Amino acid sequence: MHYGKMVDSHENASRMDHMYAAITTSGQHEMLEPEDNGIALIEQVHDHGYIEFLRTTWARWSTMGKTDPLIPATWATGSFGGEHAGGQSNSIPALIGRYSFAADAPLTAGTWQAAYTGAQSAITAQRLVSAGGRAAFALTRPPGHHAHKDLCGGYCFLNNAAIAAQGFRADGKKVAIIDIDFHHGNGTQDIFYDSSDVLTQSLHGDPDTCFPFYLGFESETGTGEGRGYNQNFAMPLGTGYSDWVVSLNKACERATAFGAEALVIPLGVDAHENDPISGFKLTTEDFGSAAKVLASLNLPTVITMEGGYDMESLGKNVATFINSFS
Amino acid sequence: MHYGKMVDSHENASRMDHMYAAITTSGQHEMLEPEDNGIALIEQVHDHGYIEFLRTTWARWSTMGKTDPLIPATWATGSFGGEHAGGQSNSIPALIGRYSFAADAPLTAGTWQAAYTGAQSAITAQRLVSAGGRAAFALTRPPGHHAHKDLCGGYCFLNNAAIAAQGFRADGKKVAIIDIDFHHGNGTQDIFYDSSDVLTQSLHGDPDTCFPFYLGFESETGTGEGRGYNQNFAMPLGTGYSDWVVSLNKACERATAFGAEALVIPLGVDAHENDPISGFKLTTEDFGSAAKVLASLNLPTVITMEGGYDMESLGKNVATFINSFS
Repeated sequence: MHYGKMVDSHENASRMDHMYAAITTSGQHEMLEPEDNGIALIEQVHDHGYIEFLRTTWARWSTMGKTDPLIPATWATGSFGGEHAGGQSNSIPALIGRYSFAADAPLTAGTWQAAYTGAQSAITAQRLVSAGGRAAFALTRPPGHHAHKDLCGGYCFLNNAAIAAQGFRADGKKVAIIDIDFHHGNGTQDIFYDSSDVLTQSLHGDPDTCFPFYLGFESETGTGEGRGYNQNFAMPLGTGYSDWVVSLNKACERATAFGAEALVIPLGVDAHENDPISGFKLTTEDFGSAAKVLASLNLPTVITMEGGYDMESLGKNVATFINSFS
Repeated sequence: MHYGKMVDSHENASRMDHMYAAITTSGQHEMLEPEDNGIALIEQVHDHGYIEFLRTTWARWSTMGKTDPLIPATWATGSFGGEHAGGQSNSIPALIGRYSFAADAPLTAGTWQAAYTGAQSAITAQRLVSAGGRAAFALTRPPGHHAHKDLCGGYCFLNNAAIAAQGFRADGKKVAIIDIDFHHGNGTQDIFYDSSDVLTQSLHGDPDTCFPFYLGFESETGTGEGRGYNQNFAMPLGTGYSDWVVSLNKACERATAFGAEALVIPLGVDAHENDPISGFKLTTEDFGSAAKVLASLNLPTVITMEGGYDMESLGKNVATFINSFS
């Protein structure tokens, strides 16, 4: 569901084929399957009821004879389903409306397996880096950075970047997250909004005109102990690299000032000039330049794959970033 | 959008043809066009920003070259768009997601005119009754009882029943609302939830399994000054008239004990046994019996048209109710 029309999802399996092929072609990288490290770290980031919803609902839906993707059509917003709600329906339409903020993240037969395995990929990457690796890339889909503690949306279900950051946190390390996907990393922001040991930063299209619309404004700086530990760089449609990198440099300076001991990069390449659902003007080469800026922080780094929907440039953009990060 | 599939709307223009034909056939009723009494009473019930959204958005959407119905796909729910949102986007996807709780109430070219004229029909009915009439029926579509102060959904945009009740309130009268649509009158409940001079009551399918899912539980009884002035009768799927009328009688007793000086009946006939999207077992004759029970309160009464989607019985059900109310 994209702006009220049913379309083939921009976030689809062919993305992985393009990215995987481009990365392996370079021959520079050790390719590993993710280990299964279980649910514990995921449970530290996401709400238990939400996880159970993701894990069990498709089977319930199938039992009812349904085969279509499950898309929310009623949701608990504003005064509806708020403080005056007297009960909590366990029906499937109620649950998906309670645990979603967008209609572009339908549950399908493979959703839980893909999201769970993606999270394991992020955990595996974090463990490799925690054990002394320079950097690891969790080549995941679906992406994760839009997923809140208890909300899916924006093609995201489990927040892989937040799960990796939580892994560093469990190691006692201060973590900086610098999200360069075109869209605001609202889920990551939300998960660590009251935390002072995770500095969340995001470079993205101004939510005044860009998804996810309700979060990503520069005035959002954290709450409670987390005040001052969230920074948004909201930029207008049409922004090119020369302006964009000014924000990236600022984000890196803040990460250094923060005393980050580890870095997580939610890597979206939808800031590319040809992306069909975004609006920045970065070129393939610019992703290489961005990688060098981020690598210069010289921190143990986990990179998670987020958006990027121009099939022509997707693989090249990702490989250029990964090949340039050293 | 119905449970994640795009379908032809159950709430469509042919409903009016069926209802109008059945009512005029009886020859019992004086048929009047609504007067235009302006926006003032509507503004007493609905949020100004919401009204402006309904009134102006289609023109903006058209200016962008769009012709498809405008359906929300991202919405401000839970921690998303809540207390930590730093800004307020005026973009169309942001606005429709802020002002909707369901995907079944798309904006189309005629939405505002239909909703506004429907509200005028309710106001005209209220004025006729206020001037001494026994009862008047606002034969409206779209329906209204799901519309909150600032949310559309459930095919509803402006809450005609609440607007009629507000008219009585402006006359200094205590108003009882008894909603007999199959679905909970969540909007009407919400609008008067903190009011002690409007007693809102609704007979409906248990929200544990029925739309609107998040409101309509029996534990919702009002807040602040309104505590004790909201009553829900949530009944299981399959409920027939003999059980249903027990709730109706209780609602009438409460209206009498409350000292109601006027009555508003949001009339849905989707409690009919053949309704395609509901689940009670009332017959056409049962709507005549229900009308007699409600008429026995002997209060100045405005009836607003709400749901009912079985085209075969719709006209008969409505005409039977209206013809029996005396």
